[in-house]
Amino acid sequence: MKKFAVVLSGCGVYDGAEIHEAVMTLYAIEKHGATYQCFAPDIEQAHVINHYIGEVVDEKRNVLAESARIARGRIKPLSAFSALEYDAIVFPGGFGAAKNLSTYAFSNGDGYEVNTEVAAVIREMVAERKPVGAMCIAPVIVAEVLDDVQVTVGQDEGTALAIERTGAKHINTGIGQVTVDTKHRVYTTACYMQDKTLVEIAESTSNLIERMMADLK
Amino acid sequence: MKKFAVVLSGCGVYDGAEIHEAVMTLYAIEKHGATYQCFAPDIEQAHVINHYIGEVVDEKRNVLAESARIARGRIKPLSAFSALEYDAIVFPGGFGAAKNLSTYAFSNGDGYEVNTEVAAVIREMVAERKPVGAMCIAPVIVAEVLDDVQVTVGQDEGTALAIERTGAKHINTGIGQVTVDTKHRVYTTACYMQDKTLVEIAESTSNLIERMMADLK
Repeated sequence: MKKFAVVLSGCGVYDGAEIHEAVMTLYAIEKHGATYQCFAPDIEQAHVINHYIGEVVDEKRNVLAESARIARGRIKPLSAFSALEYDAIVFPGGFGAAKNLSTYAFSNGDGYEVNTEVAAVIREMVAERKPVGAMCIAPVIVAEVLDDVQVTVGQDEGTALAIERTGAKHINTGIGQVTVDTKHRVYTTACYMQDKTLVEIAESTSNLIERMMADLK
Repeated sequence: MKKFAVVLSGCGVYDGAEIHEAVMTLYAIEKHGATYQCFAPDIEQAHVINHYIGEVVDEKRNVLAESARIARGRIKPLSAFSALEYDAIVFPGGFGAAKNLSTYAFSNGDGYEVNTEVAAVIREMVAERKPVGAMCIAPVIVAEVLDDVQVTVGQDEGTALAIERTGAKHINTGIGQVTVDTKHRVYTTACYMQDKTLVEIAESTSNLIERMMADLK
Protein backbone atom coordinates (compact mmCIF):
# COMPACT_ATOMS: atom_id res chain seq x y z
CA MET A 1 0.00 0.00 0.00
CA LYS A 2 1.40 3.40 -1.01
CA LYS A 3 2.12 5.85 1.81
CA PHE A 4 1.55 9.58 1.43
CA ALA A 5 2.95 12.25 3.74
CA VAL A 6 0.58 15.24 4.01
CA VAL A 7 2.14 18.48 5.25
CA LEU A 8 -0.31 20.79 7.05
CA SER A 9 0.26 24.44 7.95
CA GLY A 10 -2.26 25.07 10.72
CA CYS A 11 -6.05 24.83 10.77
CA GLY A 12 -8.11 27.45 8.95
CA VAL A 13 -7.88 29.09 5.54
CA TYR A 14 -6.75 32.58 6.66
CA ASP A 15 -3.85 31.64 8.96
CA GLY A 16 -3.36 27.91 8.42
CA ALA A 17 -4.17 24.95 6.18
CA GLU A 18 -7.37 25.25 4.15
CA ILE A 19 -9.56 22.75 5.96
CA HIS A 20 -11.69 21.59 3.00
CA GLU A 21 -8.61 20.99 0.83
CA ALA A 22 -6.81 19.19 3.65
CA VAL A 23 -9.73 16.87 4.45
CA MET A 24 -10.47 16.22 0.77
CA THR A 25 -6.79 15.36 0.26
CA LEU A 26 -6.87 12.78 3.07
CA TYR A 27 -10.15 11.44 1.64
CA ALA A 28 -8.72 11.20 -1.89
CA ILE A 29 -5.65 9.34 -0.64
CA GLU A 30 -7.80 6.77 1.17
CA LYS A 31 -10.27 6.53 -1.72
CA HIS A 32 -7.47 5.73 -4.16
CA GLY A 33 -6.24 2.89 -1.94
CA ALA A 34 -3.28 4.53 -0.22
CA THR A 35 -2.58 5.56 3.38
CA TYR A 36 -1.45 8.87 4.85
CA GLN A 37 0.56 10.32 7.70
CA CYS A 38 0.14 14.01 8.54
CA PHE A 39 3.10 16.24 9.36
CA ALA A 40 3.52 19.89 10.33
CA PRO A 41 6.45 22.03 11.42
CA ASP A 42 6.64 22.64 15.17
CA ILE A 43 6.73 26.45 14.84
CA GLU A 44 4.61 29.39 15.90
CA GLN A 45 2.00 30.64 13.39
CA ALA A 46 2.84 33.95 11.68
CA HIS A 47 -0.34 35.31 13.27
CA VAL A 48 -3.85 34.28 14.31
CA ILE A 49 -6.92 35.45 12.44
CA ASN A 50 -10.41 35.36 13.94
CA HIS A 51 -12.20 33.70 11.01
CA TYR A 52 -15.59 35.14 11.98
CA ILE A 53 -14.57 38.80 11.99
CA GLY A 54 -11.68 38.30 9.54
CA GLU A 55 -9.13 40.21 11.60
CA VAL A 56 -5.78 39.49 13.24
CA VAL A 57 -6.15 38.90 16.98
CA ASP A 58 -3.58 39.03 19.79
CA GLU A 59 -3.00 35.30 20.23
CA LYS A 60 -0.22 32.82 19.62
CA ARG A 61 -0.80 29.37 18.17
CA ASN A 62 1.52 26.53 17.18
CA VAL A 63 1.34 25.15 13.63
CA LEU A 64 1.80 21.52 14.74
CA ALA A 65 -0.82 21.73 17.51
CA GLU A 66 -3.39 23.41 15.24
CA SER A 67 -2.69 21.04 12.33
CA ALA A 68 -3.31 18.18 14.78
CA ARG A 69 -6.98 19.25 14.80
CA ILE A 70 -7.34 18.24 11.15
CA ALA A 71 -5.35 15.04 11.78
CA ARG A 72 -7.43 14.06 14.86
CA GLY A 73 -4.19 14.08 16.87
CA ARG A 74 -2.37 11.62 14.61
CA ILE A 75 0.40 13.89 13.36
CA LYS A 76 4.18 14.06 13.54
CA PRO A 77 6.54 17.03 13.61
CA LEU A 78 8.00 17.65 10.16
CA SER A 79 11.49 17.17 11.67
CA ALA A 80 10.61 13.44 11.99
CA PHE A 81 9.95 13.06 8.26
CA SER A 82 12.18 10.81 6.16
CA ALA A 83 11.80 10.49 2.39
CA LEU A 84 12.78 6.84 2.70
CA GLU A 85 9.52 6.04 4.54
CA TYR A 86 7.03 7.61 2.11
CA ASP A 87 6.08 7.13 -1.54
CA ALA A 88 4.80 10.67 -2.07
CA ILE A 89 4.24 13.98 -0.30
CA VAL A 90 1.40 16.49 -0.65
CA PHE A 91 0.93 20.10 0.45
CA PRO A 92 -2.70 21.28 0.76
CA GLY A 93 -3.23 25.04 0.44
CA GLY A 94 -4.60 27.81 2.62
CA PHE A 95 -2.77 30.96 3.72
CA GLY A 96 -0.77 28.81 6.13
CA ALA A 97 1.32 27.66 3.16
CA ALA A 98 2.03 31.30 2.34
CA LYS A 99 2.40 32.56 5.92
CA ASN A 100 3.78 29.68 8.02
CA LEU A 101 5.55 27.41 5.52
CA SER A 102 6.87 30.38 3.55
CA THR A 103 6.87 34.18 3.69
CA TYR A 104 5.07 34.53 0.34
CA ALA A 105 1.95 36.25 1.78
CA PHE A 106 4.10 38.93 3.39
CA SER A 107 6.20 39.60 0.28
CA ASN A 108 5.38 41.89 -2.59
CA GLY A 109 5.84 38.99 -4.98
CA ASP A 110 9.47 39.64 -5.93
CA GLY A 111 11.16 37.35 -3.46
CA TYR A 112 10.17 35.23 -0.48
CA GLU A 113 11.60 32.49 1.70
CA VAL A 114 10.54 28.93 2.42
CA ASN A 115 10.82 27.40 5.89
CA THR A 116 14.12 25.48 5.90
CA GLU A 117 12.55 22.21 7.13
CA VAL A 118 9.92 22.40 4.40
CA ALA A 119 12.52 23.15 1.72
CA ALA A 120 14.71 20.26 2.90
CA VAL A 121 11.81 17.80 2.79
CA ILE A 122 10.90 18.77 -0.79
CA ARG A 123 14.53 18.48 -1.95
CA GLU A 124 14.83 15.11 -0.21
CA MET A 125 11.76 13.74 -2.04
CA VAL A 126 12.91 15.07 -5.41
CA ALA A 127 16.37 13.56 -4.84
CA GLU A 128 14.64 10.19 -4.27
CA ARG A 129 12.57 10.71 -7.46
CA LYS A 130 9.36 10.59 -5.39
CA PRO A 131 6.24 12.60 -6.36
CA VAL A 132 5.58 15.99 -4.71
CA GLY A 133 2.03 17.36 -4.88
CA ALA A 134 0.86 20.90 -4.05
CA MET A 135 -2.49 22.62 -4.32
CA CYS A 136 -4.00 26.10 -4.14
CA ILE A 137 -1.27 28.59 -3.13
CA ALA A 138 1.20 25.87 -2.01
CA PRO A 139 2.84 25.60 -5.47
CA VAL A 140 4.64 28.91 -4.66
CA ILE A 141 6.65 26.91 -2.13
CA VAL A 142 7.69 24.27 -4.66
CA ALA A 143 8.49 26.99 -7.23
CA GLU A 144 10.86 28.71 -4.81
CA VAL A 145 12.60 25.51 -3.68
CA LEU A 146 13.15 23.76 -7.04
CA ASP A 147 15.00 25.09 -10.06
CA ASP A 148 13.13 25.39 -13.32
CA VAL A 149 9.98 23.62 -12.17
CA GLN A 150 6.58 23.85 -13.86
CA VAL A 151 3.48 24.45 -11.69
CA THR A 152 -0.07 25.86 -11.72
CA VAL A 153 -2.12 27.98 -9.33
CA GLY A 154 -4.97 28.28 -11.86
CA GLN A 155 -5.15 31.64 -13.58
CA ASP A 156 -4.16 34.19 -10.95
CA GLU A 157 -1.86 36.64 -12.76
CA GLY A 158 -0.13 38.11 -9.70
CA THR A 159 0.78 34.74 -8.26
CA ALA A 160 1.80 33.43 -11.69
CA LEU A 161 4.16 36.40 -12.05
CA ALA A 162 5.68 35.81 -8.60
CA ILE A 163 6.19 32.16 -9.50
CA GLU A 164 7.92 33.03 -12.79
CA ARG A 165 10.21 35.46 -10.93
CA THR A 166 11.62 32.49 -8.98
CA GLY A 167 12.68 30.97 -12.30
CA ALA A 168 9.77 28.51 -12.37
CA LYS A 169 7.22 28.24 -15.16
CA HIS A 170 3.51 28.86 -14.50
CA ILE A 171 0.88 27.00 -16.56
CA ASN A 172 -2.64 28.48 -16.71
CA THR A 173 -5.20 25.77 -15.98
CA GLY A 174 -8.97 25.38 -15.78
CA ILE A 175 -11.04 23.99 -12.94
CA GLY A 176 -9.94 20.56 -11.72
CA GLN A 177 -6.90 20.39 -14.01
CA VAL A 178 -3.56 19.01 -12.80
CA THR A 179 -0.19 20.26 -14.05
CA VAL A 180 2.57 17.66 -14.10
CA ASP A 181 6.30 18.43 -14.16
CA THR A 182 7.72 15.10 -15.28
CA LYS A 183 11.34 16.17 -14.71
CA HIS A 184 10.89 16.81 -10.97
CA ARG A 185 7.74 14.65 -10.59
CA VAL A 186 5.80 17.67 -9.27
CA TYR A 187 1.98 17.68 -9.43
CA THR A 188 -0.07 20.84 -8.83
CA THR A 189 -3.72 21.92 -8.99
CA ALA A 190 -5.48 25.22 -8.22
CA CYS A 191 -8.29 24.19 -5.82
CA TYR A 192 -9.60 27.27 -3.96
CA MET A 193 -7.30 29.56 -6.00
CA GLN A 194 -9.89 28.92 -8.70
CA ASP A 195 -12.55 26.32 -7.92
CA LYS A 196 -15.64 27.67 -6.26
CA THR A 197 -17.54 24.79 -4.68
CA LEU A 198 -16.60 22.02 -2.29
CA VAL A 199 -17.61 19.46 -4.93
CA GLU A 200 -15.08 21.06 -7.29
CA ILE A 201 -12.41 21.03 -4.57
CA ALA A 202 -13.07 17.33 -4.03
CA GLU A 203 -12.67 16.75 -7.78
CA SER A 204 -9.39 18.70 -7.91
CA THR A 205 -7.85 16.86 -4.97
CA SER A 206 -9.10 13.54 -6.33
CA ASN A 207 -7.60 14.29 -9.76
CA LEU A 208 -4.28 15.24 -8.17
CA ILE A 209 -4.02 12.11 -6.01
CA GLU A 210 -5.28 9.85 -8.82
CA ARG A 211 -2.57 11.20 -11.14
CA MET A 212 0.15 10.79 -8.49
CA MET A 213 -1.05 7.25 -7.76
CA ALA A 214 -1.01 6.36 -11.48
CA ASP A 215 2.65 7.39 -11.65
CA LEU A 216 3.45 5.37 -8.52
CA LYS A 217 2.24 2.11 -10.03
CA MET B 1 -32.89 24.26 -4.17
CA LYS B 2 -33.15 22.86 -0.63
CA LYS B 3 -31.33 24.80 2.11
CA PHE B 4 -29.60 23.05 5.01
CA ALA B 5 -28.48 24.75 8.21
CA VAL B 6 -25.34 23.10 9.63
CA VAL B 7 -24.65 23.74 13.32
CA LEU B 8 -20.97 23.61 14.26
CA SER B 9 -19.51 23.45 17.77
CA GLY B 10 -15.93 24.65 17.30
CA CYS B 11 -13.09 23.27 15.21
CA GLY B 12 -11.36 20.05 16.27
CA VAL B 13 -12.59 16.68 17.51
CA TYR B 14 -11.53 16.98 21.17
CA ASP B 15 -13.00 20.40 22.02
CA GLY B 16 -15.13 21.34 19.00
CA ALA B 17 -16.78 20.02 15.85
CA GLU B 18 -15.20 16.91 14.32
CA ILE B 19 -13.59 18.41 11.23
CA HIS B 20 -13.88 15.38 8.91
CA GLU B 21 -17.56 14.91 9.72
CA ALA B 22 -18.26 18.62 9.33
CA VAL B 23 -16.52 18.91 5.94
CA MET B 24 -18.03 15.66 4.67
CA THR B 25 -21.48 16.93 5.72
CA LEU B 26 -21.03 20.14 3.71
CA TYR B 27 -19.74 18.05 0.80
CA ALA B 28 -22.69 15.62 0.97
CA ILE B 29 -25.18 18.52 1.02
CA GLU B 30 -23.63 20.05 -2.11
CA LYS B 31 -23.24 16.66 -3.80
CA HIS B 32 -26.92 15.91 -3.32
CA GLY B 33 -27.88 19.21 -4.95
CA ALA B 34 -28.69 21.33 -1.92
CA THR B 35 -27.01 24.39 -0.35
CA TYR B 36 -25.86 25.05 3.20
CA GLN B 37 -25.41 27.84 5.71
CA CYS B 38 -23.23 27.22 8.76
CA PHE B 39 -24.22 28.40 12.23
CA ALA B 40 -22.64 28.24 15.69
CA PRO B 41 -23.51 29.64 19.09
CA ASP B 42 -21.54 32.77 20.06
CA ILE B 43 -20.28 31.29 23.34
CA GLU B 44 -16.95 30.42 24.92
CA GLN B 45 -15.69 26.84 24.48
CA ALA B 46 -15.89 24.64 27.58
CA HIS B 47 -12.13 24.35 27.32
CA VAL B 48 -9.30 24.18 24.78
CA ILE B 49 -7.39 20.97 24.09
CA ASN B 50 -3.99 20.92 22.41
CA HIS B 51 -4.72 18.23 19.82
CA TYR B 52 -1.04 17.27 19.46
CA ILE B 53 -0.38 16.50 23.13
CA GLY B 54 -4.03 15.69 23.92
CA GLU B 55 -4.23 17.86 27.02
CA VAL B 56 -6.29 20.83 28.22
CA VAL B 57 -4.37 24.10 27.86
CA ASP B 58 -4.89 27.48 29.51
CA GLU B 59 -6.59 29.27 26.62
CA LYS B 60 -10.01 30.65 25.81
CA ARG B 61 -11.65 30.25 22.41
CA ASN B 62 -15.06 31.24 21.04
CA VAL B 63 -17.23 28.55 19.43
CA LEU B 64 -18.47 30.85 16.64
CA ALA B 65 -14.98 32.14 15.76
CA GLU B 66 -13.47 28.63 15.72
CA SER B 67 -16.39 27.15 13.76
CA ALA B 68 -15.82 29.92 11.20
CA ARG B 69 -12.55 28.16 10.29
CA ILE B 70 -14.49 25.19 8.92
CA ALA B 71 -16.97 27.52 7.22
CA ARG B 72 -14.22 29.69 5.62
CA GLY B 73 -15.70 32.69 7.42
CA ARG B 74 -19.21 32.23 6.00
CA ILE B 75 -21.07 31.53 9.22
CA LYS B 76 -23.84 33.12 11.27
CA PRO B 77 -24.46 33.16 15.01
CA LEU B 78 -27.07 30.57 15.95
CA SER B 79 -29.19 33.39 17.40
CA ALA B 80 -29.81 34.51 13.79
CA PHE B 81 -31.32 31.15 12.79
CA SER B 82 -34.97 30.94 11.77
CA ALA B 83 -36.67 27.62 10.97
CA LEU B 84 -38.73 29.45 8.32
CA GLU B 85 -35.60 30.01 6.19
CA TYR B 86 -34.26 26.41 6.08
CA ASP B 87 -35.53 23.06 4.88
CA ALA B 88 -33.44 20.98 7.25
CA ILE B 89 -30.82 21.23 9.98
CA VAL B 90 -27.80 19.01 10.70
CA PHE B 91 -25.47 18.62 13.68
CA PRO B 92 -22.05 17.09 12.91
CA GLY B 93 -20.32 15.42 15.86
CA GLY B 94 -17.09 15.86 17.76
CA PHE B 95 -16.71 16.52 21.50
CA GLY B 96 -17.90 20.09 20.85
CA ALA B 97 -21.44 18.71 20.63
CA ALA B 98 -20.97 17.11 24.06
CA LYS B 99 -18.98 19.96 25.65
CA ASN B 100 -20.12 23.22 24.04
CA LEU B 101 -23.63 22.49 22.74
CA SER B 102 -24.46 20.36 25.78
CA THR B 103 -22.91 19.27 29.07
CA TYR B 104 -23.03 15.56 28.17
CA ALA B 105 -19.25 15.03 28.23
CA PHE B 106 -19.04 16.41 31.76
CA SER B 107 -21.95 14.36 33.11
CA ASN B 108 -21.84 10.82 34.42
CA GLY B 109 -24.51 9.86 31.91
CA ASP B 110 -27.53 10.25 34.18
CA GLY B 111 -28.51 13.79 33.29
CA TYR B 112 -27.10 16.65 31.24
CA GLU B 113 -28.21 19.96 29.78
CA VAL B 114 -28.43 21.29 26.25
CA ASN B 115 -27.52 24.89 25.38
CA THR B 116 -30.83 26.81 25.37
CA GLU B 117 -30.29 28.28 21.89
CA VAL B 118 -29.54 24.83 20.48
CA ALA B 119 -32.59 23.31 22.19
CA ALA B 120 -34.83 26.11 20.88
CA VAL B 121 -33.61 25.66 17.31
CA ILE B 122 -34.30 21.91 17.37
CA ARG B 123 -37.81 22.43 18.82
CA GLU B 124 -38.50 25.12 16.22
CA MET B 125 -37.57 22.78 13.34
CA VAL B 126 -39.61 19.89 14.76
CA ALA B 127 -42.60 22.22 15.22
CA GLU B 128 -42.31 23.11 11.53
CA ARG B 129 -42.10 19.38 10.63
CA LYS B 130 -38.64 19.93 9.13
CA PRO B 131 -35.90 17.23 9.23
CA VAL B 132 -33.26 17.31 11.98
CA GLY B 133 -30.05 15.34 11.38
CA ALA B 134 -27.34 14.47 13.91
CA MET B 135 -24.21 12.35 13.71
CA CYS B 136 -21.60 10.80 15.99
CA ILE B 137 -22.21 11.97 19.58
CA ALA B 138 -24.63 14.78 18.56
CA PRO B 139 -27.72 12.52 18.83
CA VAL B 140 -27.41 12.87 22.65
CA ILE B 141 -28.50 16.49 22.15
CA VAL B 142 -31.59 15.54 20.17
CA ALA B 143 -32.42 12.79 22.68
CA GLU B 144 -32.36 15.26 25.56
CA VAL B 145 -34.41 17.95 23.76
CA LEU B 146 -37.18 15.83 22.23
CA ASP B 147 -39.60 13.52 24.02
CA ASP B 148 -39.66 9.89 23.07
CA VAL B 149 -37.35 10.19 20.06
CA GLN B 150 -35.48 7.30 18.42
CA VAL B 151 -31.76 7.77 17.59
CA THR B 152 -28.49 5.90 17.04
CA VAL B 153 -24.88 6.48 18.06
CA GLY B 154 -23.82 3.10 16.68
CA GLN B 155 -23.23 0.45 19.33
CA ASP B 156 -21.65 2.30 22.27
CA GLU B 157 -23.37 0.87 25.35
CA GLY B 158 -22.61 3.72 27.76
CA THR B 159 -23.92 6.39 25.43
CA ALA B 160 -26.93 4.25 24.50
CA LEU B 161 -27.77 3.94 28.21
CA ALA B 162 -27.46 7.70 28.77
CA ILE B 163 -29.74 8.27 25.79
CA GLU B 164 -32.36 5.84 27.10
CA ARG B 165 -32.25 7.59 30.51
CA THR B 166 -33.55 10.76 28.83
CA GLY B 167 -36.61 8.80 27.75
CA ALA B 168 -35.37 8.38 24.16
CA LYS B 169 -34.90 5.06 22.41
CA HIS B 170 -31.47 3.96 21.15
CA ILE B 171 -31.19 1.74 18.07
CA ASN B 172 -27.96 -0.24 17.57
CA THR B 173 -26.69 0.22 14.03
CA GLY B 174 -23.82 -0.95 11.83
CA ILE B 175 -21.35 1.13 9.85
CA GLY B 176 -22.95 3.71 7.57
CA GLN B 177 -26.51 2.99 8.71
CA VAL B 178 -29.02 5.79 9.29
CA THR B 179 -31.76 5.63 11.93
CA VAL B 180 -34.96 7.51 11.06
CA ASP B 181 -37.54 8.68 13.57
CA THR B 182 -40.51 9.33 11.30
CA LYS B 183 -42.61 10.90 14.08
CA HIS B 184 -40.14 13.75 14.76
CA ARG B 185 -38.38 13.52 11.37
CA VAL B 186 -35.02 12.94 13.13
CA TYR B 187 -32.13 11.30 11.20
CA THR B 188 -29.03 9.99 12.97
CA THR B 189 -25.86 8.08 12.07
CA ALA B 190 -22.82 7.00 14.10
CA CYS B 191 -19.86 8.28 12.05
CA TYR B 192 -16.70 8.39 14.22
CA MET B 193 -18.60 6.81 17.15
CA GLN B 194 -18.18 3.67 15.07
CA ASP B 195 -16.77 4.13 11.57
CA LYS B 196 -13.01 3.91 11.34
CA THR B 197 -11.92 5.44 8.06
CA LEU B 198 -12.54 8.75 6.34
CA VAL B 199 -14.08 6.90 3.39
CA GLU B 200 -16.58 5.34 5.82
CA ILE B 201 -17.30 8.74 7.38
CA ALA B 202 -17.98 10.12 3.91
CA GLU B 203 -20.39 7.23 3.27
CA SER B 204 -22.22 7.80 6.56
CA THR B 205 -22.68 11.53 6.02
CA SER B 206 -23.68 10.91 2.40
CA ASN B 207 -26.26 8.30 3.49
CA LEU B 208 -27.65 10.68 6.11
CA ILE B 209 -28.01 13.63 3.74
CA GLU B 210 -29.34 11.44 0.90
CA ARG B 211 -32.05 10.08 3.20
CA MET B 212 -32.98 13.57 4.44
CA MET B 213 -33.08 14.86 0.84
CA ALA B 214 -35.32 11.95 -0.23
CA ASP B 215 -37.82 12.91 2.46
CA LEU B 216 -37.69 16.57 1.42
CA LYS B 217 -38.80 15.80 -2.14
